[in-house]
Amino acid sequence: MSGNGKLIGVGVGPGDPELMTLKAVRALEGADVVAHFSKDGNDSHARAIAAQFIPPGAAELPLPYPVTTETPTADPAYRSAIQAFFDSSANLVAAHLEAGRTVAVLSEGDPLFFGSYMHLHVRLMRRFPTEVIPGVTGMSGCWSAAGLPITQGDDVLTVLPGTLEEAELIRRFRQNDPSVVMKVGRNLSKVRRALIAADRLTDATYVERGTMENERLLPFVQKTDDSAPYFAIVLVAGRWWKP
Amino acid sequence: MSGNGKLIGVGVGPGDPELMTLKAVRALEGADVVAHFSKDGNDSHARAIAAQFIPPGAAELPLPYPVTTETPTADPAYRSAIQAFFDSSANLVAAHLEAGRTVAVLSEGDPLFFGSYMHLHVRLMRRFPTEVIPGVTGMSGCWSAAGLPITQGDDVLTVLPGTLEEAELIRRFRQNDPSVVMKVGRNLSKVRRALIAADRLTDATYVERGTMENERLLPFVQKTDDSAPYFAIVLVAGRWWKP
Repeated sequence: MSGNGKLIGVGVGPGDPELMTLKAVRALEGADVVAHFSKDGNDSHARAIAAQFIPPGAAELPLPYPVTTETPTADPAYRSAIQAFFDSSANLVAAHLEAGRTVAVLSEGDPLFFGSYMHLHVRLMRRFPTEVIPGVTGMSGCWSAAGLPITQGDDVLTVLPGTLEEAELIRRFRQNDPSVVMKVGRNLSKVRRALIAADRLTDATYVERGTMENERLLPFVQKTDDSAPYFAIVLVAGRWWKP
Repeated sequence: MSGNGKLIGVGVGPGDPELMTLKAVRALEGADVVAHFSKDGNDSHARAIAAQFIPPGAAELPLPYPVTTETPTADPAYRSAIQAFFDSSANLVAAHLEAGRTVAVLSEGDPLFFGSYMHLHVRLMRRFPTEVIPGVTGMSGCWSAAGLPITQGDDVLTVLPGTLEEAELIRRFRQNDPSVVMKVGRNLSKVRRALIAADRLTDATYVERGTMENERLLPFVQKTDDSAPYFAIVLVAGRWWKP
């Protein structure tokens, strides 16, 4: 351990600031530096959720992505740009930790569940003390808003990124598990085709901005256009569910 | 809607009371009745987590399971006993709702993710206003305590109940997804055999009482005995993970 600082991954939950945990709020109160990733030139969603709990005296460290996160991660140019970005972000955070500061990294949902925080964690966990404060995931926020019991008994839950290839989405949907599709965004029409091919379209609910003020929630069969924000989620109910 | 009462499913998170959300704490403050399921003759875990936030003036409605929850759910006698129990529990809750009371049902983790709350929800959602407050899941608590990034990029997450048959566990593990095994308990030796058959034992971490004071966390290869509490969880890292 080369410094006295501590790295804390802080899950801020799915969108409603009231869905932050007591522990997350306290971690922010005690933070010297509050870091947050932002994507696609927008302000950080995580920062917007946690804004009221960031102490006025804390330094802020914005970490804006240099590239869109919707590019297939197999693209070599993307991989190279993103690895360099995470390296330099970790260096910025490390400088604060070496100076003995506590750095809280805001993470939408849960930090280690598809969160950017992990890229700092893996780069710094051997050099500094770390703590991860779990958060309510976006998918929990969505199925709770929908009042949809996602799993019971011996169900298997499958969480699928919408970036998967269509054939693989179809294969997964045909396993008939209750499923959640993350990162729907521009993959919406592909997700719809895969649901139709697996005969599961009528089990699906489309959710935009779950738990936020402008939440939108409808049976997927009623979502007839192909435009969706990156963070839209599709919930696919278990075969036993009769709403 | 036959009454003015409101049914609220309150997720209390994985065990550390600090991992309750602000919204859950506020819901308890405003509740007239606090209901909680308990299993196997024990006190309610969910009540223990939320104890300090239950207002002194609130009535409590304990709902003790008549049978163990580790029986295979396909057993007809189990199914019959458990359905009768949920019916009578819903009737008890409905009597309070009809009298205009707000009833908060405590749920470990997240209410609609393998939670008993769902059985009240589906029986009462057409008769009364309902709200579901999502919580941090047990699995998020466990992978955060382990500092294990469970998913990244295009990963598929598979959540498996340990009650599945061994062949099905093997088939699922062989898909090479990051996976979480819930309800490990007396299924531990079966889960171990399935991990070995799928060549994934060294990717697995065993977690008991994640986020609680007596948390226990170790590589599954070091868990040599077969005794585990019902709520133990096994985390199976993605193939890319190098700790």
